[in-house]
Amino acid sequence: MSPLYSRTLISYCPDIKVLDCTLRDGGLVNNFKFPDSFVKDLYKTNVKAGVDYMEFGYKASKDLFDVNEFGKWKFCDEEDIRSIVGTNESDLKISVMSDVGRTDYKNDILPKKDSVIDMIRTATYIHQIPTAVEMIEDAKVKGYETTVNLMAVSKVSETDLDAGLEILAQSAVDTIYLVDSFGAFYPEQIERLADKYLNIAAKTGKTIGIHAHNNQQLAFANTIQALRQGVSMLDATMAGMGRGAGNCYLETLLAFLKNPKYNIFPVLKFLSTDMRELKESGVKWGYDLSYMLTGLMNTHPKAAIKFMEEERTDYVDFFQEVMDNE
Amino acid sequence: MSPLYSRTLISYCPDIKVLDCTLRDGGLVNNFKFPDSFVKDLYKTNVKAGVDYMEFGYKASKDLFDVNEFGKWKFCDEEDIRSIVGTNESDLKISVMSDVGRTDYKNDILPKKDSVIDMIRTATYIHQIPTAVEMIEDAKVKGYETTVNLMAVSKVSETDLDAGLEILAQSAVDTIYLVDSFGAFYPEQIERLADKYLNIAAKTGKTIGIHAHNNQQLAFANTIQALRQGVSMLDATMAGMGRGAGNCYLETLLAFLKNPKYNIFPVLKFLSTDMRELKESGVKWGYDLSYMLTGLMNTHPKAAIKFMEEERTDYVDFFQEVMDNE
Repeated sequence: MSPLYSRTLISYCPDIKVLDCTLRDGGLVNNFKFPDSFVKDLYKTNVKAGVDYMEFGYKASKDLFDVNEFGKWKFCDEEDIRSIVGTNESDLKISVMSDVGRTDYKNDILPKKDSVIDMIRTATYIHQIPTAVEMIEDAKVKGYETTVNLMAVSKVSETDLDAGLEILAQSAVDTIYLVDSFGAFYPEQIERLADKYLNIAAKTGKTIGIHAHNNQQLAFANTIQALRQGVSMLDATMAGMGRGAGNCYLETLLAFLKNPKYNIFPVLKFLSTDMRELKESGVKWGYDLSYMLTGLMNTHPKAAIKFMEEERTDYVDFFQEVMDNE
Repeated sequence: MSPLYSRTLISYCPDIKVLDCTLRDGGLVNNFKFPDSFVKDLYKTNVKAGVDYMEFGYKASKDLFDVNEFGKWKFCDEEDIRSIVGTNESDLKISVMSDVGRTDYKNDILPKKDSVIDMIRTATYIHQIPTAVEMIEDAKVKGYETTVNLMAVSKVSETDLDAGLEILAQSAVDTIYLVDSFGAFYPEQIERLADKYLNIAAKTGKTIGIHAHNNQQLAFANTIQALRQGVSMLDATMAGMGRGAGNCYLETLLAFLKNPKYNIFPVLKFLSTDMRELKESGVKWGYDLSYMLTGLMNTHPKAAIKFMEEERTDYVDFFQEVMDNE
């Protein structure tokens, strides 16, 4: 049997879009302090590889966050993006993430005609949905494509989730994201959730995206499970770079997708050069037992991030601590 | 939604058995040179954790392999196993692997009454099945539980696989293993293959096992996919230790299985101590992009192992080489 079996299953799906969020989710690991050469090479790599969207970072409010503490991709000023992409004469679309409660969206998100940004992604918790809807409408009126990334749904009751999804499906948003913030879900849960999202979204013609975390080494498996159900916008990062255990590896995802628009060679080149240098400079992410345990307990990875920073190795005590905090 | 959703799905499956093959598959990484303290602690850990089987290594022929080149678990002499387990007064069963063409099984596998070993696992390629069947019969007559591990099936044609499985289903073997030697399969292929194995096995009352590799970070996902289909014997190793990208992580698997017979705490302890020391001594395994690429190309990881040993980082050239060799 050839491994092409399952790949052909998805090879005629022109609706599939891959979104590289290396700078945004990866930025959570290094406070968004990427060398300019890294960002330029990443942009060129994504263009050559046929990646559909590249997320440059957050649109965080400078009233709330100190520009001296964070790299520029925490804020994504228009001129900073333009210093990389010019007027972006490519098929690659550019996105930024706008956090509910952390973004001065009325002022900091320019009208689309004045920006090289193509898509605004609004990140929200379930209780923030009313504000998220307002932010989505704002972005839509300004002329952007929009997504909403409903975070931490593994902590949300089924009833609340259904209600939240119905509101989002009635909003102006184009794509609703299934987000496994804590890396807590197994593929069969993703299967069921993806079906739920797709069914609700179908009523108003929304598409569904997936953003997975690798706490239990299931980010890729969960992403392709969602894809199989009909989810079409797929988040991934170079070498899985992202908070804690990281994300779905973009290289593994592109290799899986038999779509001829994707080309893995530029990605391999980038991983051999810029990404290798970044790793060698001491930036750390990726699977560790501590992240597996927070994923298992369906909780934020911050305890595991601290455990790793302190170079602790007492996993028994750590697991007890994580359980005590639940 | 609670992550318990999918776990409860498998919590009433008393037929599930977990087999720890850390010494056997992990031994391929360090030529079976484990400190005695490591092996003793691993045995005690598996007993306490409720693991069902522990595989001590291979029964390799000393005519074919030099005892000075390999640690003792390449050969698994009866007295060496007894030096760890005594008469094994525990519920943990002991297995060894017997490779077709590399084992002097007629002499080296003692009658069960003279051995603490409980189960003989015969590893075979498709063209070696006639010999494998003879080895299985030999082990069965001597009084052992038996499995057959049909390797590299991702390279075997569907027709040959069907024919091979029919022969094995008619043999004396107790369990037939679905083995993803190259880490080439995606979960939906495992789903289809597991169904095939289970259907053929059902005719003669055999059970099915799974042995996965982590080249594409799918070893755990593929193992639980197989489990979901009805596969009941699950191979895993501590920290995923195994050739190349390694295996399904035993700790992640036990955490997933809600079966009350399993206890993850002794495993966390072992990982914090003996396994950490082994890693710190320089023994290397686990996911790397090079293993992903050999998995993707459905080929033996030996090229990637060499790439890693030579500390190369030119993944573009490496991928070209792997493709040229296919």
